Amino acid sequence: MEKNILLGHGSGGKLTHSLITELFYKHFDNPLLAQQSDSAILNFSKGKLAFTTDSYVVDPVFFPGGNIGTLAVCGTVNDLAVSGATPKYISAGFIIEEGLSMDELETIVSAMAEEASKAGVVIATGDTKVVSKGQCDKIFINTSGIGLLDDKHEHISSGSQIKSGDKIIINGPIAQHGMTIMAVRNFGSFKTDIKSDCAGLNHMINDVLNNGVKVKFMRDATRGGLATVLCEIAQNRKLGVETLEEEVPVDENVRGMCELLGFDPFYVANEGKVVMVVDAADADKALEVMKKSSLGKDAAVIGEITDQHPGKAVLKTSIGGKRIMDMLSGEQLPRIC
Amino acid sequence: MEKNILLGHGSGGKLTHSLITELFYKHFDNPLLAQQSDSAILNFSKGKLAFTTDSYVVDPVFFPGGNIGTLAVCGTVNDLAVSGATPKYISAGFIIEEGLSMDELETIVSAMAEEASKAGVVIATGDTKVVSKGQCDKIFINTSGIGLLDDKHEHISSGSQIKSGDKIIINGPIAQHGMTIMAVRNFGSFKTDIKSDCAGLNHMINDVLNNGVKVKFMRDATRGGLATVLCEIAQNRKLGVETLEEEVPVDENVRGMCELLGFDPFYVANEGKVVMVVDAADADKALEVMKKSSLGKDAAVIGEITDQHPGKAVLKTSIGGKRIMDMLSGEQLPRIC
Repeated sequence: MEKNILLGHGSGGKLTHSLITELFYKHFDNPLLAQQSDSAILNFSKGKLAFTTDSYVVDPVFFPGGNIGTLAVCGTVNDLAVSGATPKYISAGFIIEEGLSMDELETIVSAMAEEASKAGVVIATGDTKVVSKGQCDKIFINTSGIGLLDDKHEHISSGSQIKSGDKIIINGPIAQHGMTIMAVRNFGSFKTDIKSDCAGLNHMINDVLNNGVKVKFMRDATRGGLATVLCEIAQNRKLGVETLEEEVPVDENVRGMCELLGFDPFYVANEGKVVMVVDAADADKALEVMKKSSLGKDAAVIGEITDQHPGKAVLKTSIGGKRIMDMLSGEQLPRIC
Repeated sequence: MEKNILLGHGSGGKLTHSLITELFYKHFDNPLLAQQSDSAILNFSKGKLAFTTDSYVVDPVFFPGGNIGTLAVCGTVNDLAVSGATPKYISAGFIIEEGLSMDELETIVSAMAEEASKAGVVIATGDTKVVSKGQCDKIFINTSGIGLLDDKHEHISSGSQIKSGDKIIINGPIAQHGMTIMAVRNFGSFKTDIKSDCAGLNHMINDVLNNGVKVKFMRDATRGGLATVLCEIAQNRKLGVETLEEEVPVDENVRGMCELLGFDPFYVANEGKVVMVVDAADADKALEVMKKSSLGKDAAVIGEITDQHPGKAVLKTSIGGKRIMDMLSGEQLPRIC
């Protein structure tokens, strides 16, 4: 196979066929892709499905803790999982800049295969386009996902059962992914101890759902950070959200990097963090289950839903003040995911 | 709303929310998107689903006969339809270059809404990323699609029932989309009578399937053109494919443009052409049904499946010669779709 991606790899002809059979099938080996048809054929028993899509344009493509391929699979798995669904199938659409090295592409593709395997999802269908040098930046990946949704979890995606008194939980420290990307961009090869939290959360979430915890709502705190999710809950449900700043886990070196570069960790992207709203009576149980997973060992109750200040998310600061959080305005970190 | 796309429109924060509510919801108005959740929730009765994905990077974004939005919906609708499925839901993932005018984006989005409505599909979920100037070229769109598949049509996507004697049908003249793009690229505003054949074929295909025609296989002849589809049939089924050059419809002005620019119309992309393999006894019926649709009025039997030269697609030329067709090698027309 060629050492670098050529325009012809996106032609739909011979080179596309060789790329598919020699690289994609090597890593994404499953009977659905092997059908080589225009659509993958999936079996479902009667029920509800969750359907989601995300494009990934992260820069740099490789970063401590993962690469764009890791992100593309984990991000879509998480979007399905936070809707209460069990992720089953994902698609992979590649837009590749002419000249990308085949080795880099293979590293990305094998990371996707590894994360898909961990999450228990099948990469069922795909597409490759190649554009000339300078018409995209290395590689962009779109993944769409389909998950199975149990009737009893359907309310989760709307948050319709959220009420005053419910507790807000996060599964670990915030701002790791965003600050990892910023550290690499600003300091290049400068070594820090920060790495992206990029991970598929579906198994941990599944454990919480299957252990009798009444989960009212979940969302993964990606672009826009934790603050944006808290604002969305308040605005969509017309209830108040109260968060205790000192309860929100932030790693010391991430906090340091935020201070150094002038970012508020509440607005920095995460790629392995779920914000859950659970019935107050189940909060301890939820924490207990989460802490059994390596992805939830630092889980914490960070606040609660309140009848006060409906539509507003308020942060109670460590020094006793209160401030209203707003959604991220403008762009803090382009191409963070 | 701003006159141009800013980086902040991809931030996941305030500007993203305003773009979604003020532009996307305006055109893609449906209860699934209005859920504003991470995944759209879909209802299915027991059965099989078809799942497909495609990224669109066509350059120029606007062309006679459509734009990248038309293409993004029709292309994915067609991928589902040629698998024998009824297209139901599609996703829309946008990667937008900072500075794209909001008017252009709205033209694209409204074309998507129009084609989705014509095809009877719902745009169920979406995503927007914005990259800095020069990091992509205006706009790339990924659409993934889900369709319902009747058990009795499951064999279509594999072509497992193809046998010697089956007839090969195409629904109209080839090479229109590709030559339209090339004409615009080469001659800019120079007016030709050529326009893209970009169209959703699902209703016409559905009519053929529901009128007792035994369809053995279908594929839309996009990148790589008609020749590549004929080669795929021969290679995948280990049968011979014989095509009669003079039976393949090509519009005179398209043929002229091909000669002028040095292209073989058999290898030029189409965006509204389906190649069908049908039982010989049903060929007339298939033509009759197709011709009732404006998208199939020039439908023609162009060849047949044979036991001779298994694995090879042979073209019988108008002057009595025979030549073996090969898949497109190299890249003929980058960013054609």
